[in-house]
Amino acid sequence: MSLLKECVKLGENVMSNMKLNASKKALEYIDNGMNIVLGSGTTVHKFIELLSPKVKKGLKCKFASTSIDTTMMSRIHGIEITPFEILVEEKIQYAIDGADIISDNGIIKGGGGALTSEKIMGYAAEKMIILADENKYREVFGGIVPIEVIPVSYRSVLNKVNNGSIRMAEKKLGPVITDHGNFIIDVEMKEIKNPSEMESELNNIPGVVTNGIFTKYEHIIVGNENGARII
Amino acid sequence: MSLLKECVKLGENVMSNMKLNASKKALEYIDNGMNIVLGSGTTVHKFIELLSPKVKKGLKCKFASTSIDTTMMSRIHGIEITPFEILVEEKIQYAIDGADIISDNGIIKGGGGALTSEKIMGYAAEKMIILADENKYREVFGGIVPIEVIPVSYRSVLNKVNNGSIRMAEKKLGPVITDHGNFIIDVEMKEIKNPSEMESELNNIPGVVTNGIFTKYEHIIVGNENGARII
Repeated sequence: MSLLKECVKLGENVMSNMKLNASKKALEYIDNGMNIVLGSGTTVHKFIELLSPKVKKGLKCKFASTSIDTTMMSRIHGIEITPFEILVEEKIQYAIDGADIISDNGIIKGGGGALTSEKIMGYAAEKMIILADENKYREVFGGIVPIEVIPVSYRSVLNKVNNGSIRMAEKKLGPVITDHGNFIIDVEMKEIKNPSEMESELNNIPGVVTNGIFTKYEHIIVGNENGARII
Repeated sequence: MSLLKECVKLGENVMSNMKLNASKKALEYIDNGMNIVLGSGTTVHKFIELLSPKVKKGLKCKFASTSIDTTMMSRIHGIEITPFEILVEEKIQYAIDGADIISDNGIIKGGGGALTSEKIMGYAAEKMIILADENKYREVFGGIVPIEVIPVSYRSVLNKVNNGSIRMAEKKLGPVITDHGNFIIDVEMKEIKNPSEMESELNNIPGVVTNGIFTKYEHIIVGNENGARII
């Protein structure tokens, strides 16, 4: 194996370990009889891998899924998905989800395009727990903020934001289409001074369905090589 | 004809005249070279009927449409529709639209389920002009406020609002599906004291795409039996 390939592999292993450590910590929250929302993305994939043997050994929980991806992943791992509409009429103890950027003031999600269901279901849970690794931590809160928009509004939304671009698909022509049939606009925001205010401001642009700034979560479990810390 | 039928017919004629008078007034705004958003609903139908002969006689404007209904109506009347995405890159002088409830403090739209495109396109115009008749005027601002929601969120949104119900379809099973593939929740609000605040508050519920409270319009043309007044 070339040196470059070895370095990439080593890096991937370290990242993977960080995600594993965060997921292990999150697993401690889960108990019989709970209703849980499963987020989306690679960190949640790790969590599902850890959850799977527990479910097979008889853990009795109901799980809702925030994306087609998570639903497929769950089925592969023998975890049955219950419609969110049912869980929300009972009580949802936890939503376990990942993030793209974390900070002391807020997080950014939506790199995987599942932000709308993640926000609908995450904010409906009593406690939303975010899993991340140290690489995602920023001292200054900012980055690419994804915004899900109604297709016909994409140009009028682009006119309202600075440094926005429509997310193009890689394996089909044209833009990415979300699980809800909408487009995503990625907006570069170097520093977001008031995350809640910005979250609300973006929501008030006509055509915007949701945005990737999340401010209502319980805490963040940040996995590192040796374990995990809580923000 | 029975007395009841005659009364209904008389009432319809009066209503129709009021809408006609509002539409006539709105037509005075339209000039060659303008880009215009056509709203949706019966009052806009009247406006399109008046617009049609002008277009056939050579009026040179570009028109965007806020609903499939308006697009179909426009085609019947020989009015060509230009995609909104094109018009918004130029300049939109006016959006001409109807309303369900009007007041001195705000209006409510969305009885026809086209609220999302109406808000996207109406708020993108330099001036949004509302056409209504006197029957729609309320001294106290309030009524049924329609909210367009992402389907998976309908129960969690219902949990967040008081007196909300999902709008059911009449000629298909299940709920009304909007032109954007979403559901509508109708919320009874007897008195809305701060319309802008409520508009923003509803937008911040996860899953909400748009709501029927409109606060950013130029003015309302209220048609009556003799002519029209401006609010």
